[in-house]
Amino acid sequence: MTRGTLFGLGVGPGDPELITLKAHRLLTTVPVVAYPAPEHGDSLARSIVASFLSPEQTEIAIRMPLDLNRFPVEAVYDQAAIDIAEHLDAGRDVAAICEGDPFFYGSFMYLFGRLSEQHQVEVVPGVSSLLACPAAAGAPLAARDDVLMICPGLVDEDEMLQRLANVDAAAIIKVGRHLGKVRRVLEALDLVDRAHYVEHATMADQVVLPFAEIDAAKVPYFSMILIHRRGEAWR
Amino acid sequence: MTRGTLFGLGVGPGDPELITLKAHRLLTTVPVVAYPAPEHGDSLARSIVASFLSPEQTEIAIRMPLDLNRFPVEAVYDQAAIDIAEHLDAGRDVAAICEGDPFFYGSFMYLFGRLSEQHQVEVVPGVSSLLACPAAAGAPLAARDDVLMICPGLVDEDEMLQRLANVDAAAIIKVGRHLGKVRRVLEALDLVDRAHYVEHATMADQVVLPFAEIDAAKVPYFSMILIHRRGEAWR
Repeated sequence: MTRGTLFGLGVGPGDPELITLKAHRLLTTVPVVAYPAPEHGDSLARSIVASFLSPEQTEIAIRMPLDLNRFPVEAVYDQAAIDIAEHLDAGRDVAAICEGDPFFYGSFMYLFGRLSEQHQVEVVPGVSSLLACPAAAGAPLAARDDVLMICPGLVDEDEMLQRLANVDAAAIIKVGRHLGKVRRVLEALDLVDRAHYVEHATMADQVVLPFAEIDAAKVPYFSMILIHRRGEAWR
Repeated sequence: MTRGTLFGLGVGPGDPELITLKAHRLLTTVPVVAYPAPEHGDSLARSIVASFLSPEQTEIAIRMPLDLNRFPVEAVYDQAAIDIAEHLDAGRDVAAICEGDPFFYGSFMYLFGRLSEQHQVEVVPGVSSLLACPAAAGAPLAARDDVLMICPGLVDEDEMLQRLANVDAAAIIKVGRHLGKVRRVLEALDLVDRAHYVEHATMADQVVLPFAEIDAAKVPYFSMILIHRRGEAWR
């Protein structure tokens, strides 16, 4: 019997119309769909593609416990890999979906690391929030010979300051609770008035603001700050 | 009369199945499609979506002269903006397509800079080669708190060396004739055995190689080198 293929499927930034034709074809034909989910409640990745799924498909929710100290993410993905491997060994293809793109800071890497040596794995790239946020802000990300820096909000303040110094263009991703630190870095580098803020790009609750107007108390995890030293990439 | 909207449409890295549902809907309904093209011959962007176009649509080929000293790119886009604006003013929507994503080192910025103040413009993000190349190489681009550097091959050797020093992950884009320089930089930083090479990702002539096996005489413009300091992003 032919063993199944694991597809790592990027489902884009949030608007269901921003999935690719290929992701749509696979999602509507594979017998098994897996997705990350919170301990309780709905999966964001699944919600993006919910209208494309059918009741005949088997679903695997990979649920992240709130208390990751007691039950670490590695253990969650160890079990998910076992569950998925059973389907692959039985000849059933599995689509593991994730928001944005599977290989751009995506949770799919946990499954890839566990399953790619023993199984057939194909990654289907998707539209990352890195591309959706500039489109939402009406601000080109990078052009010509710009050097572009992608920096997670989690990075230490000193390192962020050093990395962003003299940069042509930058995106600070997953800002969330790190906004205060980011603000200090941008002020030190005199980049505040060069910065756009975008949260939940392409979703119903999308927000686009100049940096100075952000409400620090309401910055979610899925948020991004875009910076261009020249102000506008095309000039 | 309602004026038309200019859509900046990313058509993805090459595989026609990697365009989004939204790009597909717009491409099959707008009356006018514009695309960059060489002075003679076929447009790469148009070739990606050729099967979705119909003879009823008006096409605008934005042709780049070989001799850009005598006829600069600015003059080409000045004329293209005038041609497109005529359609918009007459109430016709125009889809300006480009490979990958419009705002990620895309040629759409030239039209955006000329038309966005006077016309309604909407950017539809696409799958960039930045995401297609890691998928093709089976190598996650970045994960967790990695700082990721995107560096065009055109950048000066000293700057490239400085930017890539101590980086977690990097993509050197548009390598082409700059391979020799890139090789010297990677050797100086002891990153050669951490580097994957991808050209023409998702196209029929896709090539994926370890850095050491590249044939320097055959590196095209649409090529990329992916580097991860830990070797594999998920570890």
